[in-house]
Amino acid sequence: MHLPKFVNVTEVGPRDGFQMEKQFIPTDVKIELVNALARCGIRRMEVTSFVSPKAIPQMQDGAQVIAGVDRSLGINLAALVPNPKGAENAVKAGVDEMVIFLSASESHNRSNVNRTIDESLDGFKTVMEVAKVAKISLRGAIAVSFGCPFEGNVPPERVKKIVDRLLELGVNGITLGDTTGMATPVVVSALCEAILKSYPKLDLALHFHNTRGIGLVNVYHALQMGLTNFESSLAGLGGCPFAPDATGNICTEDLVYMLHELNIETGIDLRALLGVARRAEQVIGRSLPGQVIKAGLRLDLHPTPCRV
Amino acid sequence: MHLPKFVNVTEVGPRDGFQMEKQFIPTDVKIELVNALARCGIRRMEVTSFVSPKAIPQMQDGAQVIAGVDRSLGINLAALVPNPKGAENAVKAGVDEMVIFLSASESHNRSNVNRTIDESLDGFKTVMEVAKVAKISLRGAIAVSFGCPFEGNVPPERVKKIVDRLLELGVNGITLGDTTGMATPVVVSALCEAILKSYPKLDLALHFHNTRGIGLVNVYHALQMGLTNFESSLAGLGGCPFAPDATGNICTEDLVYMLHELNIETGIDLRALLGVARRAEQVIGRSLPGQVIKAGLRLDLHPTPCRV
Repeated sequence: MHLPKFVNVTEVGPRDGFQMEKQFIPTDVKIELVNALARCGIRRMEVTSFVSPKAIPQMQDGAQVIAGVDRSLGINLAALVPNPKGAENAVKAGVDEMVIFLSASESHNRSNVNRTIDESLDGFKTVMEVAKVAKISLRGAIAVSFGCPFEGNVPPERVKKIVDRLLELGVNGITLGDTTGMATPVVVSALCEAILKSYPKLDLALHFHNTRGIGLVNVYHALQMGLTNFESSLAGLGGCPFAPDATGNICTEDLVYMLHELNIETGIDLRALLGVARRAEQVIGRSLPGQVIKAGLRLDLHPTPCRV
Repeated sequence: MHLPKFVNVTEVGPRDGFQMEKQFIPTDVKIELVNALARCGIRRMEVTSFVSPKAIPQMQDGAQVIAGVDRSLGINLAALVPNPKGAENAVKAGVDEMVIFLSASESHNRSNVNRTIDESLDGFKTVMEVAKVAKISLRGAIAVSFGCPFEGNVPPERVKKIVDRLLELGVNGITLGDTTGMATPVVVSALCEAILKSYPKLDLALHFHNTRGIGLVNVYHALQMGLTNFESSLAGLGGCPFAPDATGNICTEDLVYMLHELNIETGIDLRALLGVARRAEQVIGRSLPGQVIKAGLRLDLHPTPCRV
């Protein structure tokens, strides 16, 4: 079996995870966790969203969090920007990358940003101008790419058309989001093949959720297709808006554990990462979905309870 | 990618799951769940263990549970038997199959049954005699086959030698147990290849745990190797003795969900199975690890929150 030698892991917990938390996480705690993650060898992170503080109060301190990051650690900081105003704030805050986002289905885009897909795409033109002036990389993220909770299956050609438009706009990379955990190996193959056929050299990242228990199966399948960019969340922070008890993002430590056990390098110190994940559980104040934080690494042995 | 067309799912919840529960599950509830599982199309089940009621009080009603099963549903009932006395009780109770078990490491076998591996294997001879007289199939299960929590990696040749001995004894099939979730695709390949090289037609079942989050990844890997027998537990019932919060057995509904999404048949009615899993959560009185019971099937759509 042919697997990649190196995989890029993007940590999205500080954005996708924290934004699901109702209780405000103090800015200094956010900064502490972001710096701790950077020290583990995480090289790219979605650190915040420059959205309306009314819409997502948890993200209101994005600029302060970015200001507190130890940039000598060499981490690439990305932030979601929904509109030109958000982009300007992101530029002022000093992000390395901006992420524009829309959904692959009209109903999900409407429910998320109250626009049609075309309106979203048109709106991104001004964001791109802001990015160009600031010389900051812009990435496009497409939610519900592997299935929509309102509409069901999303035809790969529909996602492909959105990718066409985003690339015409000039984005540097694309992230396919599995927003409610509807991806399966069959769906992943169909969609990624449709896109990579036209854009074999595209910087394509996959953002899977573990909502139906097969998030890492989808990663394993995508690795076999040669894909090397995955997004995940510390300790599995996050959730699913449609099922309060369900899991959201795949868990970063579990992902890194799997990759290392497949002899794939990530540049990440997994044991240090487990320490940060345990700290996140402490900060959040409840048990989080990550499994390796509970069980330890596979060769973390236990004392033999008897003489052999 | 070449995957099997049909997979046999063995339900082990009533044995491996229930035995981890401290509170006694009433016999009639056990019977209700076993019959409900049989009605979903489950064709093989580890229904109980004929062990000392002092050692595992939860399993003391094994014979009564078996007596309560609606045998017209065509389910194959297997039970663990640690010794000849257990085997005789299992025969009396009317099981279809007996499972003898030992560990791949001396330290785990000692801690589990207080014997050396050789002593276990010698003891199985009398169990085999009981099975032969009763004309009941005997299966061998090898715990910690993919790694031992006390000793670490278990060399495949060591497991292979135990398989040799069990087959010499006359068992009809072998189950490799991943007792504390130490299997990885690399380990699965090394072990299964070592065994299948000598016994290409062996009835080989894999019993994975999700303790480190990659139980279904191991199944997906094994499917690609052509393996078709997997053991799993309703709603993910069970646990890990070394990490109180960690997950044990892979979850049956999540496994069946994945298999069906891979276009692999199981003969199981997944939606009915989800109903039984939710009933199990109710009976046990706490949230269980299964994901699909929380999120629903991927095409269980949600109402669109707005006009498109």
